[in-house]
Amino acid sequence: MKLGRLNHIGVATPSIEESLRYYRDTMGAVQITEPFDLPEQGVTVCFVDTPDSTGEVGKGTQIELIEPLGETSTLNTFMEKNPLGGQHHVCYEVEDIEEARHWFEGRGKRILGPTRIGAHGTPIFFLHPKDMMGQLTEIMETPKKDAH
Amino acid sequence: MKLGRLNHIGVATPSIEESLRYYRDTMGAVQITEPFDLPEQGVTVCFVDTPDSTGEVGKGTQIELIEPLGETSTLNTFMEKNPLGGQHHVCYEVEDIEEARHWFEGRGKRILGPTRIGAHGTPIFFLHPKDMMGQLTEIMETPKKDAH
Repeated sequence: MKLGRLNHIGVATPSIEESLRYYRDTMGAVQITEPFDLPEQGVTVCFVDTPDSTGEVGKGTQIELIEPLGETSTLNTFMEKNPLGGQHHVCYEVEDIEEARHWFEGRGKRILGPTRIGAHGTPIFFLHPKDMMGQLTEIMETPKKDAH
Repeated sequence: MKLGRLNHIGVATPSIEESLRYYRDTMGAVQITEPFDLPEQGVTVCFVDTPDSTGEVGKGTQIELIEPLGETSTLNTFMEKNPLGGQHHVCYEVEDIEEARHWFEGRGKRILGPTRIGAHGTPIFFLHPKDMMGQLTEIMETPKKDAH
């Protein structure tokens, strides 16, 4: 397997509304997607777009803002330890999600649950941070419409 | 100020040597810079290159691996709390570092120390995570040779 694009970094927040103000007013973000709920993952999500090395906004690694949704969200534990929010996970793209799953399984890495559809509408899975040098790591199949 | 490119995410590690094996063998990285010391910042550093949306390796957001250097490294505190390592900071590019410094100062954000030369050879400064929604944030002037 070859290291893919860093699609996004996941950043937990106690309030997406407050984060949106922060990214717009303090960081100068000019393009942010509408927040939406992912109930099965217990999060409300939106993406802050960044420019790539050519300056094109939306082509760079995104910031995925995640706010806990519901009392049982697993993100609540993270927020108890990090009430201000903070970096939560990294997400790399792969061409083929099943191939990637076999790759990591073959290396003894713990995969957290089944492959499922993620915030970009493509299949994803998460790997245990203790097997990934301390980083909760999401693996995501590259959206076909964005393929080059 | 307009949100710049996400130049890199800083990832702390107890051992760059071990991280290099991990990024090569587990994550499939094909391009990693030679580690070097930044004694004034108390870290040994190297960069893992990732592809951008066109697939060109080295054009995407980099992973900056940082290992504590010396007994007095401020990174030692982070490593005590996160012995496996993990996400440490984010770094955004700006066109003009002095303009950016004034911008953040004007918004009451605490800047950690003077503007200094960072790992890419351009001026940088860090902002206090408690003022940046939980993220230690580095601001870095875009290297001129990489400008497009």
